[in-house]
Amino acid sequence: MSLLVVGSVAFDALETPFGKREKIIGGAGTFISLSAAHFVQPVNLVSVVGGDFLKSDIAMLQSKGINVDGLQIKENEKSFFWSGRYFNDMNSRETLVTELNVLGDFDPIIPESYQDCKYLMLGNLAPQVQRQVIERLTNRPKLIVMDTMNFWMDIALDDLIQTIGMVDVLSINDEEARQLSGEYSLVKAAKKIMGMGPKYLIIKKGEHGALLFHGEEVFFAPALPLEEVFDPTGAGDTFAGGFIGYLASTDDISFDNMKRAVINGSAMASFCVEQFGTERLVDLQPDEVVTRVLEFVKLVNFQPQQA
Amino acid sequence: MSLLVVGSVAFDALETPFGKREKIIGGAGTFISLSAAHFVQPVNLVSVVGGDFLKSDIAMLQSKGINVDGLQIKENEKSFFWSGRYFNDMNSRETLVTELNVLGDFDPIIPESYQDCKYLMLGNLAPQVQRQVIERLTNRPKLIVMDTMNFWMDIALDDLIQTIGMVDVLSINDEEARQLSGEYSLVKAAKKIMGMGPKYLIIKKGEHGALLFHGEEVFFAPALPLEEVFDPTGAGDTFAGGFIGYLASTDDISFDNMKRAVINGSAMASFCVEQFGTERLVDLQPDEVVTRVLEFVKLVNFQPQQA
Repeated sequence: MSLLVVGSVAFDALETPFGKREKIIGGAGTFISLSAAHFVQPVNLVSVVGGDFLKSDIAMLQSKGINVDGLQIKENEKSFFWSGRYFNDMNSRETLVTELNVLGDFDPIIPESYQDCKYLMLGNLAPQVQRQVIERLTNRPKLIVMDTMNFWMDIALDDLIQTIGMVDVLSINDEEARQLSGEYSLVKAAKKIMGMGPKYLIIKKGEHGALLFHGEEVFFAPALPLEEVFDPTGAGDTFAGGFIGYLASTDDISFDNMKRAVINGSAMASFCVEQFGTERLVDLQPDEVVTRVLEFVKLVNFQPQQA
Repeated sequence: MSLLVVGSVAFDALETPFGKREKIIGGAGTFISLSAAHFVQPVNLVSVVGGDFLKSDIAMLQSKGINVDGLQIKENEKSFFWSGRYFNDMNSRETLVTELNVLGDFDPIIPESYQDCKYLMLGNLAPQVQRQVIERLTNRPKLIVMDTMNFWMDIALDDLIQTIGMVDVLSINDEEARQLSGEYSLVKAAKKIMGMGPKYLIIKKGEHGALLFHGEEVFFAPALPLEEVFDPTGAGDTFAGGFIGYLASTDDISFDNMKRAVINGSAMASFCVEQFGTERLVDLQPDEVVTRVLEFVKLVNFQPQQA
């Protein structure tokens, strides 16, 4: 089932209590695609990088089943660059550098071969760019999932609300849900946000798991309790990639299957944080994902009555 | 199956964004007993109050299946009093007044009729008082569950560690687990704390649920996402009461049954926060608990494969 992913492909520089990396591949589009490609291939990627981007990184994406026909390379410009530092508890981070570079005037061109995609994942980008992608598709996909950030709530709220009104599933974190809705209770926040258009809302709570809302229904997926969180960068995008990748691979958007998709996304995110950047996603084997999903079953499933 | 509960019975004064109460019944022993009594009766309570305590409150406890033969009444002294205020997010609170009064020199006398209890719940108290209770029982109960607080880690750590070494299940919150173990990762913290003696550890995470650890196994129970949290006072104790009450009523301490006990405790806690103090627990009907446990099933259970 064809999957289109739009999102940044970038260089990251990271520092965590476990070490640092100077300039490694990152970006929402990268994490989403690598994660989704564990479930469905090809992943049709639309993004933009500069002439400084490594050919070896592009080859790595291709080797993982990611179609880079829609990856624009602006030879005379520089790639998006983000640098950050995590503190001891791994829950707070400080952004050191953000250089938009090629992302500043990103024109998301959809290759003809990407048309008729059934599943569309809009990674975090300016909401008018996300909207352009939807408008440039000849047919509306069966399911549109959108991720965004508080940054756009601060500087482009009207644009953001317009784009949110066009998607099926919105994925944001708890603080963003509170900011967007003005409600502290996540149950109330979810109702307000679904009132803006999306039939489904995912609220990510980091180490505390994720909630999936739909009408009056709610499903909760825990985060796997881990001995060590090595680097949280990209965990939310990896979650989103696993979510839509699982849905695309099964081509079933029932609420019961969305539950499984949330669990598969959580499983992928639990791998992502085990090493720096994309390192763990790149060497991840299919049977490891299956095994980890079963760990989630063990973690939360229970029989309400004694046998 | 006989259940012995030891814990404070007190007056609370509360202020939340939803209103205030001047002087209502509170205390760990109260919340634990009222919660446990939904599952098993009688609950044999050991505690102490002053001459100022209301006869009507004691009658209320009795009417709910709580045996007050072990409730000492010190006519010329005052009951333990706690006063606190919650802020808008309900996650932070300020203690305004703590008057130990009768609790300052509490001597936990065990009535002869309470001997041979199979289940013992030690609510938050000075660890040497908790230890005295264990030592005063002729036979060791089948299961001893202990709750405590960071306060005792600060002022009576050696005593606390000695008591922890005598119990089967320890129940503390995430910050306390980190303080007690010196580990940020809850998985690492759990290993260290179980190394101190308890075979089971419950880490309470408030609105983020609770983790049950045992050897290499871990089970996660979410908190029910609620529209409104009215008053969080006593939620942790209500959880503990539901946990041990369920275990005592089923007389099964297998890990699978402990999962159900954690869910039943979480269900009880979700009721507790819906009104002030003990108000919701007092008028709670048995069928409401059954219905709520099924909400937890819906919230987290999923089938790992498509049918």
